[in-house]
Amino acid sequence: MILTSKNNPLIKETAALKDKKARKEMGLFLVEGRKMAVECQKSDFEIDRVFVAESYTGENPFSAEQTVCVSDDVFRFLSDEKTPQGILCRVKIPTHSLRAPKGKCLLLDGVADPGNIGTIIRTANAAGYEEIYLTEECADPYSPKGVRASMSGVFFTKLYRSSRVEILSVLSGIPLVVADMGGANVFSFRAPERFALAIGNEANGISEAVRLAATHTVRIPMQATQESLNAAISAGIIMYVLNKDDFKE
Amino acid sequence: MILTSKNNPLIKETAALKDKKARKEMGLFLVEGRKMAVECQKSDFEIDRVFVAESYTGENPFSAEQTVCVSDDVFRFLSDEKTPQGILCRVKIPTHSLRAPKGKCLLLDGVADPGNIGTIIRTANAAGYEEIYLTEECADPYSPKGVRASMSGVFFTKLYRSSRVEILSVLSGIPLVVADMGGANVFSFRAPERFALAIGNEANGISEAVRLAATHTVRIPMQATQESLNAAISAGIIMYVLNKDDFKE
Repeated sequence: MILTSKNNPLIKETAALKDKKARKEMGLFLVEGRKMAVECQKSDFEIDRVFVAESYTGENPFSAEQTVCVSDDVFRFLSDEKTPQGILCRVKIPTHSLRAPKGKCLLLDGVADPGNIGTIIRTANAAGYEEIYLTEECADPYSPKGVRASMSGVFFTKLYRSSRVEILSVLSGIPLVVADMGGANVFSFRAPERFALAIGNEANGISEAVRLAATHTVRIPMQATQESLNAAISAGIIMYVLNKDDFKE
Repeated sequence: MILTSKNNPLIKETAALKDKKARKEMGLFLVEGRKMAVECQKSDFEIDRVFVAESYTGENPFSAEQTVCVSDDVFRFLSDEKTPQGILCRVKIPTHSLRAPKGKCLLLDGVADPGNIGTIIRTANAAGYEEIYLTEECADPYSPKGVRASMSGVFFTKLYRSSRVEILSVLSGIPLVVADMGGANVFSFRAPERFALAIGNEANGISEAVRLAATHTVRIPMQATQESLNAAISAGIIMYVLNKDDFKE
């Protein structure tokens, strides 16, 4: 059977997941494209439904029972892509209760752009930061843009979203390294064995509360003609530089 | 006088500069926003005209002679921003003849996304790479998106755009460090005093010609669950790691 109507309740509620409110209410998010679907299946995430466009001829690693076939027109309605690949999963948002990290972790303190959030999650996953704490001011990492930029990073890191106060409380006792203009040169800095790295908002930087809780502050040195770096770029450089010894051969 | 018509020849030709073809023909590009306009004025770039929206009340560092006042509607027509600030400059694209770099330099080998090009230029400017060689396959660094992402980096780096063959010829004799999956761990690598760093295309990586010319190859190590990084992120990490000794205090 092929669903051809945008008024079908399943289609309507699935398309609504492009918006944060519906994701929160339903506890579901969308994962689009063949590669992302395959990576999602490899992870511990629970896949609720898979939508495949009528004309899709690529790989579909999911059972017929899970799969809903839709017309190309309906697929475009569900999709967030300019050129949809024709496969899209509806996935349960994991609900972890907030707790202390096992290893090195990130604290995203009001990072507002969903693309930056996703790119930072991708880099954190690559660089070996397994736990990511997001303050409530952060963009939703489960938005289509965030998931896409994370390149499956959302499946292989543990995301905790909570208030700044609760996050700082769960991280208390762990060295807190804050990225901030006035800090020490990150290339001369020796990171403690275990730490949380805090990255601030794109325009306003680190919040007062996180700044006060900092045990160390680091900055990326720059030539005088450039006053700042893109938030995801500076997060990526600092994450790797602080964790480089884990990768030394 | 306030220009109010989109059919005015000056307005029409200026709006056309959002497209690559017109930029190439006229040798001009657009710089938008107060901060970027101020940075542009500080640089050696030659500003041809400044367009200011009727309702703009912010800083205008340019002479009345250079300034053209336009209606808000006409300004939106010229602007590439969703929420235009009301100031936009028409600037001459510099024409450097291709020559060997003085210091550390970048070779962008088919980087296709204008946002990535701009972000890489911004980071190169911050990290002390003053010369950037772009192969003809690269996106245009003077597109509105590229200029915006560069955050004035286009004004303070030297951009050369040429064929891959010509660029490799002008770089011959200089150690060529290529970013590639199969390379040495960049954190264990000792960079030569002087070098060119090559960054490849987002999907296909480094071209065969540049790979063959490489004297060194480096990679960013990664956890198994993530197979790649965003192109601008990996360029940023490698640029800084290879040049970190220049920043040591």
